[in-house]
Order: sequence, then C-alpha cells, then structure tokens
Amino acid sequence: MQASTQPLYDLREGEALSALPSQPDAALYFIGRIHTPWKEREKCPRQGRIDGPVCRIEIFEPWAAGLEGIEAFESLEVLYWLHLSRRDIVKQCPRNDGKARGVFSLRSPLRPNPIGLAKVRQERIEGRFLEVRGLDCLDGTPLIDVKPDRCLYSPQVPPKPLEDKS
Amino acid sequence: MQASTQPLYDLREGEALSALPSQPDAALYFIGRIHTPWKEREKCPRQGRIDGPVCRIEIFEPWAAGLEGIEAFESLEVLYWLHLSRRDIVKQCPRNDGKARGVFSLRSPLRPNPIGLAKVRQERIEGRFLEVRGLDCLDGTPLIDVKPDRCLYSPQVPPKPLEDKS
Repeated sequence: MQASTQPLYDLREGEALSALPSQPDAALYFIGRIHTPWKEREKCPRQGRIDGPVCRIEIFEPWAAGLEGIEAFESLEVLYWLHLSRRDIVKQCPRNDGKARGVFSLRSPLRPNPIGLAKVRQERIEGRFLEVRGLDCLDGTPLIDVKPDRCLYSPQVPPKPLEDKS
Repeated sequence: MQASTQPLYDLREGEALSALPSQPDAALYFIGRIHTPWKEREKCPRQGRIDGPVCRIEIFEPWAAGLEGIEAFESLEVLYWLHLSRRDIVKQCPRNDGKARGVFSLRSPLRPNPIGLAKVRQERIEGRFLEVRGLDCLDGTPLIDVKPDRCLYSPQVPPKPLEDKS
C-alpha cells in the first residue's frame, strides 16, 4: 500500500480509489529524458499536436546506439513515465466534467501504470538527441521507449516465418 | 547488470549489447492478463490484425471498476509486458534480414523496456473481461494498461483550461 507516497489529491464525488499492491511486478529503466517547453503541469497541452512545438528527446548514453536507422521513420511512437501521477484512482472525474468514469476509458495521466504515449513526427536527429513534434508532456519527463509508428512500419522480412528470435 | 538473468540468445553479426543499470527507476503493476490463441512465441503473428481472432483481456479485481465507460470506445490501445524478452540488446538483426539496426528503429519485442503496444477493436465487455481483436501477444501476457485510442478520443471538456488535476 503506497497511499502515503502518493501526491496529494482531493477526491471528487463519484471517484474511487483502489489500493496498490504491496509489491511491484516489473521494473522500468529510464532510458532518456524529454525536453519540452512546458515547465508546469498546468501548462501542458491536453493532447500533443503534430504541428506543435519542437521538443527534444535525449537518449542516455548506454542506449544511444539504439537510434541507428531511426531516420527512416517520419512517424514514431514515444512512451514516457508520468512521474508525478498518483496511481491509485480507479474512477475519475475529469476537470470540468463531473461524471466519474473508469480510468481505462480516459487518457488521464493518473493511472495504475502512468505511461504516456504520443505519436510524434521526427524533425531531426543529432547524435543522441531526437527532435520531434507532437508531445504534450512536462519538461524533464523520463523516457521509456521509442518505436517506429505501427501504421508506417512494415517488417522488412517475409510476413510470417518464425517470429524474431526473442 | 542483469545479463545472467537474461534469456539465452546467440548474438548475430552486427548486434550489440548494452549493460543494464543495476537499479530500476520505476515499478509496474500487472493489472490483468491477456488470453490469446498463441501458446508459443513462434506462433504469435508478427503484428496484430484488426480482423484477427478474438482475444480476452482479463482485468484483475482491484482495477475492474476502471472499465466503467469503456464501452463507448470501439478502438483501444493496449499496453502489455513482454515478459520473456531479453532487455540488453541495443542493436539487432531481425531474422531473415541480416542488417543490424538500433532497437528504436524496430518494433522487436527485445527492448530495454519490453512494453508491447497494440491498437485493438473492442468486440464485447463482460464483467471484468474485455474481448478485442488486433492483438499479437502470447497467451498469458501480463497487462499494463488500456486507453481509448488517441485518434478517436476527444476529451469531453473544453479544449485547454487547466490540465486534469493530476
């Protein structure tokens, strides 16, 4: 139960908490950091826009070689860790709404596993920095993953032999 | 350094490892389990298809209330944990390809943070079970998150007041 480590939050009517498990099930590594113009949560846009400002994704050194070949993909998916989010609110009322709904029917940052997901357009790559448009997160947000957008990505191998050796 | 706990894997020419950090940075909870027809990794399709077989997403009890309202969204994003994946391969050669590329230019399951991401179509909801099409993962895969698809989701609030209270 990690309620005591959760950020402060006044529940609204209809909202509900779920106790968090005492033990985590898997561990994440922060593989980089996202630099955006938004220094406070209140200033972050509600959703990223592909014509929004250029943001800079920094990949930490151990994973910099993972960027090789990424210039081929204009559209990318970025996963990041919403590090300030409370995790135990299972039903929420979005601000200015008033109707409580389950967390899985919302894209709220408050989630049991607060992973943000954005589709971005690649603008430029410079060493271990990737410049993109389409993000909506706070400056300094920890990076979890970058993938070619599934809409664009075709594996460059026959369609269904054995799966990658994983 | 967790190399000793990684699944066995013979490196191909051009592939490169990165040592994993000794400490994780964040913890995930498995909030459910995904039931699919694929019992072995070799049988999993390379990418999910929206006309593929119906799969069943089980939400564990503490989070079942999080499903309320989800029936409004035909298209969902599902995040899951690729629990059998080695995490320290920073450059990879996909099978039958032969050209090593950085992990961030591939949708391979072998990644520093092995999170899979699928866009699925909701078929039915029954208690804490969600039936969907479009998955490609192994039977028993741990569930991390479900969100309304960003392409369809419009926050039901004015476009840019203060951000959700998170």
